[in-house]
Amino acid sequence: MIKNTPRPINHLVIIGVGLIGGSFSLAIQRNTQIERITGVGRNQKNLECARKRGIIQYCSQDARKAVCDADVVFIAAPVASYADILAQISDVLPASAIVTDAGSTKQSVINDAHKQLKNIEYFVPAHPLAGTEQSGAGAAFADLFEDRWCILTPEENITDPVACQTVSDWWRACGANVMAMHPSEHDDLLAAVSHLPHLAAYAVVNTVSKLKKGTHDPFQFAAGGFRDFTRIASSSPTMWRDIALCNRDALLHKLDALKKELDTMHQALKERDGDSLLVQFEAARLARETWLKAYQSEHN
Amino acid sequence: MIKNTPRPINHLVIIGVGLIGGSFSLAIQRNTQIERITGVGRNQKNLECARKRGIIQYCSQDARKAVCDADVVFIAAPVASYADILAQISDVLPASAIVTDAGSTKQSVINDAHKQLKNIEYFVPAHPLAGTEQSGAGAAFADLFEDRWCILTPEENITDPVACQTVSDWWRACGANVMAMHPSEHDDLLAAVSHLPHLAAYAVVNTVSKLKKGTHDPFQFAAGGFRDFTRIASSSPTMWRDIALCNRDALLHKLDALKKELDTMHQALKERDGDSLLVQFEAARLARETWLKAYQSEHN
Repeated sequence: MIKNTPRPINHLVIIGVGLIGGSFSLAIQRNTQIERITGVGRNQKNLECARKRGIIQYCSQDARKAVCDADVVFIAAPVASYADILAQISDVLPASAIVTDAGSTKQSVINDAHKQLKNIEYFVPAHPLAGTEQSGAGAAFADLFEDRWCILTPEENITDPVACQTVSDWWRACGANVMAMHPSEHDDLLAAVSHLPHLAAYAVVNTVSKLKKGTHDPFQFAAGGFRDFTRIASSSPTMWRDIALCNRDALLHKLDALKKELDTMHQALKERDGDSLLVQFEAARLARETWLKAYQSEHN
Repeated sequence: MIKNTPRPINHLVIIGVGLIGGSFSLAIQRNTQIERITGVGRNQKNLECARKRGIIQYCSQDARKAVCDADVVFIAAPVASYADILAQISDVLPASAIVTDAGSTKQSVINDAHKQLKNIEYFVPAHPLAGTEQSGAGAAFADLFEDRWCILTPEENITDPVACQTVSDWWRACGANVMAMHPSEHDDLLAAVSHLPHLAAYAVVNTVSKLKKGTHDPFQFAAGGFRDFTRIASSSPTMWRDIALCNRDALLHKLDALKKELDTMHQALKERDGDSLLVQFEAARLARETWLKAYQSEHN
């Protein structure tokens, strides 16, 4: 539902024209007037692909040149690269340009922005909760954000409310449901429902790998349940290293909480306390089923 | 590939006519001569469904009566119920009858069999690595075991080799690939690739549930990655309690190993050691991708 007509854009610069940056461009172009779109990235082949697909009209490997007359800069690059990117563009960025992003962690990104940007009030931190296992401009598609959450984490008394509303309107124009929350709350929630499962999946795979080898390779007997459980362990290791480091405190806290859960199970199993195991398994099943019902009704 | 013509069966008794017991019956009937099939279970409606679907011809709620002229008894009931089932049938079971099963843990099942069965040499422990999230006779289908592993865990110098070969032939007739291994190796391997992921999925869901509530329900922001990772947390809590208890020692060992992996990640993250995190994530991704390639080439 588009609540406001999205503000027209003169020159949109997308730094990082991958799945997210590319899909944002395809989505926003459907109902927002945009004069020019420039894509910035190191991979010329990817930028060419984006140009051919109508994601961008111009390519650049120089962020400074690209942003000097931008009114909107959209950063869809790995969160670990923000400090560099912002340092590069800060002194050439027009004073009134809105800078927004799609990073998976928000407090780290805000810290980087405070260090580098002169006009911090026009930085609108955002995180669309969407993605696939594919990457690159070739994988981008206009419907990626349809009915997905986009979380904005504006800073109280700092972020310009009009800039925030404008970015919100653009995401709504992309089909997303927009919600605002405190950056630390965002980081805490995402540490639990996204970052922790990734680490747990990586850890379980490594546990299986290190199993003392008998005659047989344990992986030989892994089946469909293992495949789905570990799907996220096929995600980009560098991306997840960066996310983990950028959301360190919240993630350490979640790892502690998970270890506590595993300890409770360990203890119950050690004591052959079937009732306690059952209570724990039933609670998890109920929570998961309740969530799944809501999730499916929203996404089907 | 059927290596031997499967031995004809006079009276096959299936104790527990659910997804596994029902699918075994549908699969084996395709190319094995069977005079009579009786299904034993408490749920009359389920047995009626099995009869209508041609899974069984006769229903019984009394295992003793059913097995007294059986030449094959197939137990496809929860592993925690074996001691009771075997105690019920042991003194009426024909001396030469083959007893086999489909339990997810093997050492516990063998222990139960030793306590109850007079002719332990005709007990052939088996575990077909197949299943879906569905249950009951209504969900059974003949192709369930096609190209799946069925692991036999005969006891050296105890299990009759001819009985073992006969059971192996039946499973091959069901389309399964049969492999024999030591029961403790089976339990160890399955603890790693199946039982541990289930406990980890339950534990992650409970971690999310117990997250200190701010303004938002964390589950609201869970998406596709979370859905797949936690799919196995929707499995039957009683079944998994029983499997955990029956495979206690191997599973405790795997929980310790997983905690060690999580501790290593925790330590690296605490020390902001990105290189160490990357090494761990990359190892997991590589192991998972290598496995997936083999798995997909076998199952597509």
